[in-house]
Amino acid sequence: MIIDGLEINDWSRAVVEQVRSGGVDIVHATCGVWEDTAGAMTRIGSWRHFARANADVVRIVRTVDDIHRAVDDDVLGIVLGFQNSSMLGDDPEMAGIFADVGVRVVQLTYNIANHLGSSCWEPHDGGLTRAGHRMVAALNDAGVVIDISHVGNRTGLDAISASARPIAVTHGNPASFCASPRNKPDDVIDALAARGGVIGCTLYPLFIGGADVTRVAYCRMLADLAERIGVEHVAIGSDAVVGWPEGVLGWMRNGRWDRPENPDEVPPFPPWPSWFRGPEDFGSLAAGLDEAGFDAAGRDAVLGGNWLRLFEQVF
Amino acid sequence: MIIDGLEINDWSRAVVEQVRSGGVDIVHATCGVWEDTAGAMTRIGSWRHFARANADVVRIVRTVDDIHRAVDDDVLGIVLGFQNSSMLGDDPEMAGIFADVGVRVVQLTYNIANHLGSSCWEPHDGGLTRAGHRMVAALNDAGVVIDISHVGNRTGLDAISASARPIAVTHGNPASFCASPRNKPDDVIDALAARGGVIGCTLYPLFIGGADVTRVAYCRMLADLAERIGVEHVAIGSDAVVGWPEGVLGWMRNGRWDRPENPDEVPPFPPWPSWFRGPEDFGSLAAGLDEAGFDAAGRDAVLGGNWLRLFEQVF
Repeated sequence: MIIDGLEINDWSRAVVEQVRSGGVDIVHATCGVWEDTAGAMTRIGSWRHFARANADVVRIVRTVDDIHRAVDDDVLGIVLGFQNSSMLGDDPEMAGIFADVGVRVVQLTYNIANHLGSSCWEPHDGGLTRAGHRMVAALNDAGVVIDISHVGNRTGLDAISASARPIAVTHGNPASFCASPRNKPDDVIDALAARGGVIGCTLYPLFIGGADVTRVAYCRMLADLAERIGVEHVAIGSDAVVGWPEGVLGWMRNGRWDRPENPDEVPPFPPWPSWFRGPEDFGSLAAGLDEAGFDAAGRDAVLGGNWLRLFEQVF
Repeated sequence: MIIDGLEINDWSRAVVEQVRSGGVDIVHATCGVWEDTAGAMTRIGSWRHFARANADVVRIVRTVDDIHRAVDDDVLGIVLGFQNSSMLGDDPEMAGIFADVGVRVVQLTYNIANHLGSSCWEPHDGGLTRAGHRMVAALNDAGVVIDISHVGNRTGLDAISASARPIAVTHGNPASFCASPRNKPDDVIDALAARGGVIGCTLYPLFIGGADVTRVAYCRMLADLAERIGVEHVAIGSDAVVGWPEGVLGWMRNGRWDRPENPDEVPPFPPWPSWFRGPEDFGSLAAGLDEAGFDAAGRDAVLGGNWLRLFEQVF
């Protein structure tokens, strides 16, 4: 079973087919980034409409049983998640409410700080706030995976120790492989693994070092990471951005907020490596894992088994 | 089992105890009137917090099994409902989303017209709109009871015939008993009953003819109604307003909208009849039903059994 730990595609039937062509069974799909409560509910409604209209190829899954049924029925299973907590506001009850409507992953912050904590882009990270501690407990109670991919390191470390359940970096790499605030230093990765968490290594070009990074180098990083923290804590979260028109990346990154250093930025999507153009190339990634020395069990754990175990522990 | 078809109390532990003192087992409690989507979600969250903090006396119920368990556990069971569809907006997906978070009753309109249809207070009722037809189907699919208590008669008749499941007047009387736009003419009541629906006769003073109406007269109305449409279609929806401070009734009636004929209205709550001051007097009502000639089975059907059957058919 192949599970992609994060895709933020502009979904359509064609995109589903493209993802399926890579052998992907389950995707954690972002259905909220900058939305408020009502906007996020509307997007969940749109997902339901899309899934009903394309029920022969795609299905929203809420439980591990649902995941197995989707695989049995040969349809793409979608785990809905938010890359932000703007939709939860400061109300811990929203954790259970969004869980009830099918949200299974919530990232504590996206690219800016909020009342729960700081993002990885903030110059100062004061750690998980009091409301953040309360929300972590509420997400634990609601069976929602806590994601710290875009979260600042101090806030992330606090969340790892505060959470009663293992948490995730759904899409991020070791900073030792590619220096970026969006990648994680070893102390964060080690703490995550020590509490049973999973890091989904990303293929997003900016966080692997660009399109010229080789499959050998990327898969060697995965092998080294598995060696250091245990293969059971290593997975993939491609951060695929399939189907979007040019021009949307500025909004996706910044929402209504403009980066002070470049308020009129209209960034292009970066080019992807030839050996992983998108989810259709999960087969290439599997071959790379084999070349890097993973045995079949380890490869399957990295490509899906570890996410499935985390989902079983949290959902 | 006593089920009150509608109460719009300002809930507290003391109010729960007051309701329980009347032998009431289950209440359809209004948790949204004028709210938008986010405001309604926040109120549902507040209800969850209240229910958790008072779990020894009150519980939110979502299914008929939940209702039986609440009765077995001797706690007040709360069926959450909206008296408006403002929180659903024009999005039929919101029917399923609110159902997922525990909402089991939705009134198509409150006191003003909306995109689904007209309220009983509108001078012109164009009937159920196209969006109204779509929302009725979505509420049917989601297992949510459709309520037409405050809905205009033409819109209500359209909803009765459009709905695939029986629908409800959760709180309203025959207009033949008390002339008011809020009470229902015989053709609406007959159509409701013919499709398996239930009318919860109200005790709200303005819709029974004031505090001086006698228990004998009220219970004779119930007996006459049961005779005409069948006892299985008659129930109680007290419309109790326990616990509110003076001054809130203007907002409750009008929201942000001001009645053009009296924009600065600050109405007082009307006095209730001495034989039914509130839900604590359901025992008095039961005695009145006995006096009016209901047999034990008929009395129990009116006091709860008919709501339970409707809930079984719809939830």
